[in-house]
Amino acid sequence: MKKIVLLRHGESEWNRENRFTGWTDVDLSETGIGEAVMAGSLLKKEGFAFTRAFTSYLKRAVKTLNIVLDEMDLDWIAVEKSWRLNEKHYGALQGLNKAETAAQYGDEQVLIWRRSYDIAAPALAPDDPRNPRFEACYREVPFGELPVTESLKDTVERILPYWKSVIFPALETSDQIIVAAHGNSLRGVVKYLKHISDEEIVGLNLPTGVPYVFEFDDNLQLVRDYFLGDPAEIERKMGAVAAQGRAK
Amino acid sequence: MKKIVLLRHGESEWNRENRFTGWTDVDLSETGIGEAVMAGSLLKKEGFAFTRAFTSYLKRAVKTLNIVLDEMDLDWIAVEKSWRLNEKHYGALQGLNKAETAAQYGDEQVLIWRRSYDIAAPALAPDDPRNPRFEACYREVPFGELPVTESLKDTVERILPYWKSVIFPALETSDQIIVAAHGNSLRGVVKYLKHISDEEIVGLNLPTGVPYVFEFDDNLQLVRDYFLGDPAEIERKMGAVAAQGRAK
Repeated sequence: MKKIVLLRHGESEWNRENRFTGWTDVDLSETGIGEAVMAGSLLKKEGFAFTRAFTSYLKRAVKTLNIVLDEMDLDWIAVEKSWRLNEKHYGALQGLNKAETAAQYGDEQVLIWRRSYDIAAPALAPDDPRNPRFEACYREVPFGELPVTESLKDTVERILPYWKSVIFPALETSDQIIVAAHGNSLRGVVKYLKHISDEEIVGLNLPTGVPYVFEFDDNLQLVRDYFLGDPAEIERKMGAVAAQGRAK
Repeated sequence: MKKIVLLRHGESEWNRENRFTGWTDVDLSETGIGEAVMAGSLLKKEGFAFTRAFTSYLKRAVKTLNIVLDEMDLDWIAVEKSWRLNEKHYGALQGLNKAETAAQYGDEQVLIWRRSYDIAAPALAPDDPRNPRFEACYREVPFGELPVTESLKDTVERILPYWKSVIFPALETSDQIIVAAHGNSLRGVVKYLKHISDEEIVGLNLPTGVPYVFEFDDNLQLVRDYFLGDPAEIERKMGAVAAQGRAK
Protein backbone atom coordinates (compact mmCIF):
# COMPACT_ATOMS: atom_id res chain seq x y z
CA MET A 1 0.00 0.00 0.00
CA LYS A 2 1.21 3.49 -0.84
CA LYS A 3 0.59 6.03 1.90
CA ILE A 4 0.27 9.76 2.31
CA VAL A 5 0.19 11.08 5.88
CA LEU A 6 -1.33 14.50 6.50
CA LEU A 7 -0.19 16.24 9.67
CA ARG A 8 -1.62 19.45 11.07
CA HIS A 9 1.09 21.39 12.93
CA GLY A 10 1.12 21.37 16.72
CA GLU A 11 -0.22 24.23 18.85
CA SER A 12 1.26 27.64 18.00
CA GLU A 13 1.77 30.65 20.24
CA TRP A 14 -1.33 32.20 18.72
CA ASN A 15 -3.49 29.08 18.96
CA ARG A 16 -2.86 29.41 22.67
CA GLU A 17 -3.70 33.12 22.64
CA ASN A 18 -6.77 32.27 20.54
CA ARG A 19 -5.93 34.75 17.77
CA PHE A 20 -6.61 34.54 14.04
CA THR A 21 -3.30 33.50 12.56
CA GLY A 22 -3.61 32.76 8.85
CA TRP A 23 -0.33 33.64 7.15
CA THR A 24 1.20 35.29 10.24
CA ASP A 25 4.45 33.39 10.82
CA VAL A 26 4.05 32.54 14.50
CA ASP A 27 6.16 29.93 16.25
CA LEU A 28 5.16 26.62 17.84
CA SER A 29 4.38 26.74 21.56
CA GLU A 30 6.13 24.30 23.94
CA THR A 31 2.94 22.21 23.76
CA GLY A 32 3.15 22.27 19.97
CA ILE A 33 6.75 21.06 20.03
CA GLY A 34 5.66 18.23 22.33
CA GLU A 35 2.83 17.30 19.94
CA ALA A 36 5.31 17.09 17.06
CA VAL A 37 7.66 14.87 19.08
CA MET A 38 4.73 12.57 19.96
CA ALA A 39 3.61 12.38 16.31
CA GLY A 40 7.13 11.49 15.16
CA SER A 41 7.62 8.85 17.80
CA LEU A 42 4.21 7.31 17.01
CA LEU A 43 4.93 7.22 13.26
CA LYS A 44 8.30 5.59 13.95
CA LYS A 45 6.74 3.01 16.28
CA GLU A 46 4.14 2.18 13.62
CA GLY A 47 6.91 1.50 11.13
CA PHE A 48 6.46 4.46 8.79
CA ALA A 49 9.47 5.36 6.64
CA PHE A 50 8.84 8.40 4.44
CA THR A 51 11.01 9.16 1.46
CA ARG A 52 9.48 12.54 0.52
CA ALA A 53 8.04 15.35 2.59
CA PHE A 54 6.12 18.54 1.84
CA THR A 55 5.30 21.55 3.95
CA SER A 56 4.25 25.20 3.76
CA TYR A 57 6.33 28.39 4.05
CA LEU A 58 5.14 28.93 7.64
CA LYS A 59 7.51 28.01 10.46
CA ARG A 60 4.93 26.26 12.63
CA ALA A 61 4.49 23.67 9.85
CA VAL A 62 8.17 23.53 8.79
CA LYS A 63 9.30 23.01 12.39
CA THR A 64 6.62 20.41 13.07
CA LEU A 65 7.93 18.49 10.05
CA ASN A 66 11.59 18.90 11.08
CA ILE A 67 10.83 17.58 14.56
CA VAL A 68 8.85 14.61 13.21
CA LEU A 69 11.60 13.68 10.74
CA ASP A 70 14.25 13.97 13.44
CA GLU A 71 12.28 11.69 15.79
CA MET A 72 12.11 9.17 12.92
CA ASP A 73 15.84 9.53 12.04
CA LEU A 74 14.72 10.75 8.63
CA ASP A 75 16.47 14.14 8.80
CA TRP A 76 18.03 13.33 5.42
CA ILE A 77 14.91 13.05 3.27
CA ALA A 78 14.00 15.66 0.68
CA VAL A 79 11.62 18.36 1.97
CA GLU A 80 9.80 20.60 -0.48
CA LYS A 81 8.19 23.79 0.78
CA SER A 82 5.42 25.70 -0.99
CA TRP A 83 3.36 28.79 -0.18
CA ARG A 84 0.44 26.85 -1.69
CA LEU A 85 0.32 24.70 1.46
CA ASN A 86 0.01 27.78 3.71
CA GLU A 87 -2.94 28.20 6.04
CA LYS A 88 -6.09 29.96 4.79
CA HIS A 89 -5.34 33.69 4.58
CA TYR A 90 -7.52 35.45 7.16
CA GLY A 91 -7.30 38.94 5.67
CA ALA A 92 -7.82 41.82 8.08
CA LEU A 93 -8.69 39.44 10.93
CA GLN A 94 -5.08 38.26 11.19
CA GLY A 95 -3.77 39.09 14.65
CA LEU A 96 -7.20 39.67 16.24
CA ASN A 97 -8.33 37.62 19.23
CA LYS A 98 -11.07 35.15 18.25
CA ALA A 99 -13.18 35.63 21.36
CA GLU A 100 -12.93 39.44 21.18
CA THR A 101 -13.83 39.35 17.50
CA ALA A 102 -16.81 37.17 18.42
CA ALA A 103 -17.85 39.59 21.18
CA GLN A 104 -17.65 42.50 18.70
CA TYR A 105 -19.20 40.95 15.59
CA GLY A 106 -21.19 38.15 17.20
CA ASP A 107 -20.57 34.43 17.28
CA GLU A 108 -22.54 34.03 14.10
CA GLN A 109 -20.44 36.39 11.96
CA VAL A 110 -17.23 34.85 13.26
CA LEU A 111 -18.56 31.37 12.57
CA ILE A 112 -19.37 32.53 9.02
CA TRP A 113 -15.80 33.79 8.54
CA ARG A 114 -14.32 30.69 10.11
CA ARG A 115 -16.60 28.05 8.77
CA SER A 116 -18.42 29.14 5.64
CA TYR A 117 -17.09 27.64 2.46
CA ASP A 118 -17.04 30.64 0.19
CA ILE A 119 -17.20 33.79 2.33
CA ALA A 120 -13.85 35.44 3.03
CA ALA A 121 -12.93 37.75 5.92
CA PRO A 122 -12.43 41.47 5.06
CA ALA A 123 -9.38 41.89 2.79
CA LEU A 124 -6.06 43.48 3.81
CA ALA A 125 -5.46 46.90 2.28
CA PRO A 126 -2.65 47.08 -0.32
CA ASP A 127 -0.47 49.12 2.06
CA ASP A 128 -1.29 47.11 5.19
CA PRO A 129 2.07 45.96 6.63
CA ARG A 130 0.53 42.49 6.97
CA ASN A 131 0.12 42.30 3.17
CA PRO A 132 2.16 39.29 1.96
CA ARG A 133 3.55 41.31 -0.94
CA PHE A 134 5.97 42.91 1.54
CA GLU A 135 7.52 39.59 2.54
CA ALA A 136 10.68 38.19 0.94
CA CYS A 137 9.36 34.64 0.90
CA TYR A 138 6.49 35.54 -1.45
CA ARG A 139 8.63 37.57 -3.85
CA GLU A 140 8.54 34.86 -6.49
CA VAL A 141 4.79 34.29 -6.32
CA PRO A 142 3.02 35.95 -9.30
CA PHE A 143 1.40 39.09 -7.91
CA GLY A 144 -2.12 38.16 -9.01
CA GLU A 145 -1.91 34.89 -7.08
CA LEU A 146 -0.97 36.37 -3.70
CA PRO A 147 -4.07 36.51 -1.48
CA VAL A 148 -5.09 39.43 0.76
CA THR A 149 -7.92 37.32 2.19
CA GLU A 150 -9.35 33.89 1.38
CA SER A 151 -12.48 31.84 1.78
CA LEU A 152 -11.95 28.11 2.29
CA LYS A 153 -12.93 27.78 -1.37
CA ASP A 154 -10.07 30.08 -2.38
CA THR A 155 -7.68 28.07 -0.21
CA VAL A 156 -8.77 24.79 -1.79
CA GLU A 157 -8.38 26.27 -5.26
CA ARG A 158 -4.77 27.37 -4.69
CA ILE A 159 -3.77 24.11 -3.03
CA LEU A 160 -5.18 21.64 -5.55
CA PRO A 161 -2.90 22.56 -8.48
CA TYR A 162 0.10 21.82 -6.24
CA TRP A 163 -1.48 18.65 -4.87
CA LYS A 164 -2.33 17.37 -8.35
CA SER A 165 0.88 18.38 -10.09
CA VAL A 166 3.53 17.81 -7.41
CA ILE A 167 2.52 15.92 -4.25
CA PHE A 168 0.25 13.21 -5.60
CA PRO A 169 2.49 12.33 -8.60
CA ALA A 170 5.37 11.85 -6.13
CA LEU A 171 3.58 8.65 -5.04
CA GLU A 172 4.74 7.09 -8.31
CA THR A 173 8.32 7.02 -7.04
CA SER A 174 7.82 7.31 -3.26
CA ASP A 175 5.77 4.75 -1.33
CA GLN A 176 5.33 6.96 1.71
CA ILE A 177 4.92 10.72 1.79
CA ILE A 178 4.26 13.12 4.65
CA VAL A 179 2.59 16.52 4.27
CA ALA A 180 2.86 18.85 7.28
CA ALA A 181 0.52 21.80 6.94
CA HIS A 182 -2.47 23.60 8.45
CA GLY A 183 -6.09 23.09 9.55
CA ASN A 184 -7.63 24.68 6.49
CA SER A 185 -5.07 23.80 3.84
CA LEU A 186 -5.35 20.14 4.87
CA ARG A 187 -9.15 20.43 4.89
CA GLY A 188 -8.85 21.26 1.20
CA VAL A 189 -6.86 18.11 0.56
CA VAL A 190 -9.25 15.92 2.57
CA LYS A 191 -12.26 17.44 0.77
CA TYR A 192 -10.72 16.55 -2.56
CA LEU A 193 -9.56 13.03 -1.63
CA LYS A 194 -12.84 12.03 0.03
CA HIS A 195 -15.25 13.95 -2.20
CA ILE A 196 -16.69 15.87 0.73
CA SER A 197 -19.35 18.49 -0.09
CA ASP A 198 -18.88 22.24 0.42
CA GLU A 199 -21.40 22.10 3.29
CA GLU A 200 -19.82 19.16 5.10
CA ILE A 201 -16.17 20.17 4.85
CA VAL A 202 -16.69 23.21 7.10
CA GLY A 203 -17.68 20.85 9.95
CA LEU A 204 -14.48 18.79 9.72
CA ASN A 205 -12.06 19.71 12.52
CA LEU A 206 -8.66 18.13 12.04
CA PRO A 207 -6.88 17.54 15.36
CA THR A 208 -3.41 19.10 15.79
CA GLY A 209 -0.37 16.83 15.72
CA VAL A 210 -2.34 13.68 14.87
CA PRO A 211 -1.09 11.78 11.79
CA TYR A 212 -3.97 11.26 9.33
CA VAL A 213 -3.11 8.30 7.07
CA PHE A 214 -4.42 7.82 3.51
CA GLU A 215 -3.73 4.47 1.85
CA PHE A 216 -3.73 3.98 -1.93
CA ASP A 217 -3.65 0.81 -4.04
CA ASP A 218 -1.31 0.21 -6.98
CA ASN A 219 -3.63 2.20 -9.25
CA LEU A 220 -3.36 5.09 -6.76
CA GLN A 221 -7.02 4.72 -5.79
CA LEU A 222 -7.85 5.69 -2.20
CA VAL A 223 -8.55 2.52 -0.20
CA ARG A 224 -8.92 3.78 3.36
CA ASP A 225 -8.07 6.62 5.70
CA TYR A 226 -7.63 6.73 9.47
CA PHE A 227 -6.11 8.76 12.29
CA LEU A 228 -3.14 7.30 14.13
CA GLY A 229 -3.31 7.33 17.92
CA ASP A 230 -5.66 7.07 20.86
CA PRO A 231 -9.30 7.61 19.69
CA ALA A 232 -10.41 9.34 22.90
CA GLU A 233 -7.51 11.81 22.73
CA ILE A 234 -8.24 12.52 19.04
CA GLU A 235 -11.93 13.15 19.85
CA ARG A 236 -10.92 15.57 22.62
CA LYS A 237 -8.59 17.47 20.25
CA MET A 238 -11.25 17.78 17.54
CA GLY A 239 -13.68 19.21 20.09
CA ALA A 240 -11.12 21.74 21.32
CA VAL A 241 -10.59 23.10 17.80
CA ALA A 242 -14.34 23.38 17.16
CA ALA A 243 -14.83 25.43 20.36
CA GLN A 244 -12.14 28.03 19.63
CA GLY A 245 -14.34 30.56 17.83
CA ARG A 246 -16.85 31.10 20.64
CA ALA A 247 -16.91 34.31 22.69
CA LYS A 248 -17.02 32.46 26.01
CA MET B 1 28.56 41.02 -3.68
CA LYS B 2 27.31 37.47 -3.93
CA LYS B 3 28.04 35.38 -0.86
CA ILE B 4 28.39 31.76 0.11
CA VAL B 5 28.62 30.99 3.81
CA LEU B 6 30.18 27.69 4.88
CA LEU B 7 29.17 26.47 8.32
CA ARG B 8 30.66 23.51 10.14
CA HIS B 9 28.03 21.89 12.38
CA GLY B 10 28.15 22.45 16.12
CA GLU B 11 29.57 19.94 18.59
CA SER B 12 28.07 16.45 18.31
CA GLU B 13 27.66 13.79 21.00
CA TRP B 14 30.72 12.03 19.61
CA ASN B 15 32.86 15.16 19.31
CA ARG B 16 32.36 15.39 23.03
CA GLU B 17 33.22 11.72 23.54
CA ASN B 18 36.21 12.26 21.22
CA ARG B 19 35.26 9.37 18.90
CA PHE B 20 35.82 9.03 15.15
CA THR B 21 32.43 9.83 13.66
CA GLY B 22 32.62 9.99 9.87
CA TRP B 23 29.27 8.87 8.46
CA THR B 24 27.86 7.72 11.81
CA ASP B 25 24.63 9.68 12.23
CA VAL B 26 25.16 11.08 15.72
CA ASP B 27 23.12 13.93 17.14
CA LEU B 28 24.16 17.44 18.17
CA SER B 29 25.09 17.88 21.83
CA GLU B 30 23.43 20.65 23.87
CA THR B 31 26.59 22.69 23.26
CA GLY B 32 26.25 22.06 19.54
CA ILE B 33 22.64 23.27 19.56
CA GLY B 34 23.81 26.42 21.34
CA GLU B 35 26.55 26.97 18.75
CA ALA B 36 23.95 26.76 15.97
CA VAL B 37 21.67 29.25 17.73
CA MET B 38 24.63 31.65 18.13
CA ALA B 39 25.61 31.28 14.46
CA GLY B 40 22.04 31.99 13.32
CA SER B 41 21.64 35.01 15.55
CA LEU B 42 25.02 36.40 14.41
CA LEU B 43 24.15 35.92 10.72
CA LYS B 44 20.82 37.65 11.29
CA LYS B 45 22.46 40.54 13.14
CA GLU B 46 24.96 40.95 10.29
CA GLY B 47 22.08 41.26 7.82
CA PHE B 48 22.45 38.00 5.94
CA ALA B 49 19.35 36.77 4.08
CA PHE B 50 19.91 33.45 2.32
CA THR B 51 17.61 32.24 -0.41
CA ARG B 52 19.12 28.77 -0.89
CA ALA B 53 20.66 26.28 1.52
CA PHE B 54 22.55 23.03 1.18
CA THR B 55 23.48 20.36 3.69
CA SER B 56 24.52 16.72 4.01
CA TYR B 57 22.46 13.62 4.87
CA LEU B 58 23.81 13.62 8.43
CA LYS B 59 21.54 14.97 11.16
CA ARG B 60 24.20 17.00 12.95
CA ALA B 61 24.52 19.15 9.81
CA VAL B 62 20.81 19.14 8.89
CA LYS B 63 19.81 20.19 12.41
CA THR B 64 22.51 22.88 12.58
CA LEU B 65 21.08 24.31 9.36
CA ASN B 66 17.47 24.07 10.58
CA ILE B 67 18.34 25.89 13.79
CA VAL B 68 20.26 28.62 11.93
CA LEU B 69 17.42 29.18 9.45
CA ASP B 70 14.89 29.31 12.28
CA GLU B 71 16.92 31.91 14.17
CA MET B 72 16.99 33.97 10.97
CA ASP B 73 13.23 33.49 10.27
CA LEU B 74 14.22 31.76 7.06
CA ASP B 75 12.49 28.45 7.79
CA TRP B 76 10.78 28.75 4.40
CA ILE B 77 13.82 28.67 2.11
CA ALA B 78 14.62 25.69 -0.09
CA VAL B 79 17.06 23.23 1.49
CA GLU B 80 18.79 20.64 -0.65
CA LYS B 81 20.47 17.65 1.01
CA SER B 82 23.16 15.51 -0.56
CA TRP B 83 25.27 12.56 0.62
CA ARG B 84 28.12 14.25 -1.28
CA LEU B 85 28.36 16.85 1.51
CA ASN B 86 28.77 14.15 4.18
CA GLU B 87 31.82 14.09 6.44
CA LYS B 88 34.91 12.13 5.34
CA HIS B 89 34.18 8.43 5.73
CA TYR B 90 36.44 7.08 8.46
CA GLY B 91 36.17 3.40 7.53
CA ALA B 92 36.82 0.91 10.34
CA LEU B 93 37.78 3.70 12.76
CA GLN B 94 34.17 4.92 12.97
CA GLY B 95 33.00 4.62 16.57
CA LEU B 96 36.50 4.29 18.09
CA ASN B 97 37.74 6.78 20.67
CA LYS B 98 40.42 9.06 19.25
CA ALA B 99 42.65 9.06 22.31
CA GLU B 100 42.41 5.26 22.70
CA THR B 101 43.18 4.79 19.03
CA ALA B 102 46.17 7.09 19.48
CA ALA B 103 47.34 5.12 22.55
CA GLN B 104 47.07 1.88 20.55
CA TYR B 105 48.51 2.92 17.18
CA GLY B 106 50.53 5.94 18.28
CA ASP B 107 49.88 9.65 17.81
CA GLU B 108 51.72 9.56 14.51
CA GLN B 109 49.56 6.89 12.85
CA VAL B 110 46.38 8.59 14.01
CA LEU B 111 47.66 11.93 12.75
CA ILE B 112 48.34 10.26 9.40
CA TRP B 113 44.77 8.93 9.27
CA ARG B 114 43.35 12.25 10.38
CA ARG B 115 45.56 14.65 8.56
CA SER B 116 47.26 13.09 5.57
CA TYR B 117 45.80 14.08 2.26
CA ASP B 118 45.68 10.76 0.48
CA ILE B 119 45.93 7.96 3.07
CA ALA B 120 42.61 6.45 4.14
CA ALA B 121 41.82 4.60 7.38
CA PRO B 122 41.30 0.79 7.11
CA ALA B 123 38.14 0.05 5.06
CA LEU B 124 34.89 -1.34 6.42
CA ALA B 125 34.23 -4.98 5.47
CA PRO B 126 31.32 -5.55 3.04
CA ASP B 127 29.23 -7.20 5.78
CA ASP B 128 30.16 -4.73 8.53
CA PRO B 129 26.86 -3.38 9.90
CA ARG B 130 28.40 0.11 9.66
CA ASN B 131 28.68 -0.29 5.86
CA PRO B 132 26.57 2.49 4.28
CA ARG B 133 25.07 0.05 1.77
CA PHE B 134 22.75 -1.15 4.56
CA GLU B 135 21.24 2.29 5.10
CA ALA B 136 18.03 3.45 3.44
CA CYS B 137 19.34 6.94 2.82
CA TYR B 138 22.11 5.70 0.51
CA ARG B 139 19.88 3.33 -1.47
CA GLU B 140 19.86 5.60 -4.51
CA VAL B 141 23.62 6.19 -4.57
CA PRO B 142 25.27 4.09 -7.32
CA PHE B 143 26.95 1.18 -5.53
CA GLY B 144 30.41 1.92 -6.88
CA GLU B 145 30.28 5.46 -5.49
CA LEU B 146 29.48 4.53 -1.87
CA PRO B 147 32.66 4.72 0.23
CA VAL B 148 33.79 2.17 2.84
CA THR B 149 36.66 4.48 3.81
CA GLU B 150 38.06 7.73 2.45
CA SER B 151 41.17 9.83 2.40
CA LEU B 152 40.66 13.59 2.36
CA LYS B 153 41.50 13.37 -1.34
CA ASP B 154 38.62 10.94 -1.88
CA THR B 155 36.30 13.26 0.06
CA VAL B 156 37.31 16.25 -2.04
CA GLU B 157 36.79 14.26 -5.24
CA ARG B 158 33.22 13.26 -4.37
CA ILE B 159 32.27 16.75 -3.18
CA LEU B 160 33.58 18.81 -6.09
CA PRO B 161 31.19 17.47 -8.75
CA TYR B 162 28.27 18.54 -6.53
CA TRP B 163 29.90 21.88 -5.72
CA LYS B 164 30.58 22.62 -9.37
CA SER B 165 27.33 21.37 -10.83
CA VAL B 166 24.79 22.33 -8.16
CA ILE B 167 25.90 24.68 -5.36
CA PHE B 168 28.11 27.16 -7.19
CA PRO B 169 25.76 27.58 -10.20
CA ALA B 170 22.98 28.42 -7.73
CA LEU B 171 24.81 31.76 -7.22
CA GLU B 172 23.50 32.79 -10.63
CA THR B 173 19.96 33.06 -9.23
CA SER B 174 20.62 33.35 -5.48
CA ASP B 175 22.74 36.17 -4.05
CA GLN B 176 23.31 34.45 -0.72
CA ILE B 177 23.74 30.75 -0.09
CA ILE B 178 24.51 28.80 3.07
CA VAL B 179 26.17 25.37 3.16
CA ALA B 180 26.04 23.51 6.48
CA ALA B 181 28.38 20.55 6.49
CA HIS B 182 31.43 19.00 8.14
CA GLY B 183 35.06 19.66 9.01
CA ASN B 184 36.50 17.62 6.16
CA SER B 185 33.84 18.09 3.52
CA LEU B 186 34.16 21.87 3.97
CA ARG B 187 37.95 21.57 3.88
CA GLY B 188 37.49 20.20 0.39
CA VAL B 189 35.48 23.23 -0.64
CA VAL B 190 37.94 25.69 0.92
CA LYS B 191 40.88 23.90 -0.75
CA TYR B 192 39.20 24.27 -4.12
CA LEU B 193 38.07 27.90 -3.68
CA LYS B 194 41.41 29.13 -2.32
CA HIS B 195 43.73 26.88 -4.34
CA ILE B 196 45.31 25.45 -1.21
CA SER B 197 47.94 22.74 -1.71
CA ASP B 198 47.48 19.11 -0.60
CA GLU B 199 50.11 19.65 2.10
CA GLU B 200 48.63 22.84 3.50
CA ILE B 201 44.97 21.84 3.54
CA VAL B 202 45.56 19.16 6.20
CA GLY B 203 46.63 21.89 8.62
CA LEU B 204 43.44 23.93 8.20
CA ASN B 205 41.16 23.44 11.21
CA LEU B 206 37.72 24.93 10.62
CA PRO B 207 36.05 26.02 13.87
CA THR B 208 32.62 24.56 14.67
CA GLY B 209 29.56 26.79 14.38
CA VAL B 210 31.50 29.78 13.00
CA PRO B 211 30.13 31.20 9.71
CA TYR B 212 32.90 31.32 7.08
CA VAL B 213 31.95 33.91 4.45
CA PHE B 214 33.13 33.83 0.81
CA GLU B 215 32.37 36.90 -1.32
CA PHE B 216 32.23 36.82 -5.12
CA ASP B 217 32.05 39.62 -7.68
CA ASP B 218 29.60 39.78 -10.57
CA ASN B 219 31.82 37.45 -12.61
CA LEU B 220 31.66 34.98 -9.71
CA GLN B 221 35.36 35.48 -8.94
CA LEU B 222 36.32 35.07 -5.30
CA VAL B 223 37.09 38.50 -3.81
CA ARG B 224 37.62 37.81 -0.13
CA ASP B 225 36.86 35.35 2.66
CA TYR B 226 36.55 35.80 6.41
CA PHE B 227 35.15 34.23 9.55
CA LEU B 228 32.23 35.96 11.27
CA GLY B 229 32.57 36.50 15.02
CA ASP B 230 35.04 37.18 17.78
CA PRO B 231 38.62 36.47 16.55
CA ALA B 232 39.87 35.21 19.94
CA GLU B 233 36.98 32.77 20.26
CA ILE B 234 37.54 31.52 16.69
CA GLU B 235 41.26 31.02 17.46
CA ARG B 236 40.37 29.02 20.58
CA LYS B 237 37.96 26.81 18.62
CA MET B 238 40.53 26.09 15.89
CA GLY B 239 43.04 25.04 18.53
CA ALA B 240 40.54 22.74 20.23
CA VAL B 241 39.87 20.87 16.96
CA ALA B 242 43.60 20.49 16.24
CA ALA B 243 44.22 18.95 19.68
CA GLN B 244 41.50 16.26 19.46
CA GLY B 245 43.66 13.49 17.97
CA ARG B 246 46.28 13.39 20.73
CA ALA B 247 46.43 10.55 23.25
CA LYS B 248 46.69 12.89 26.25
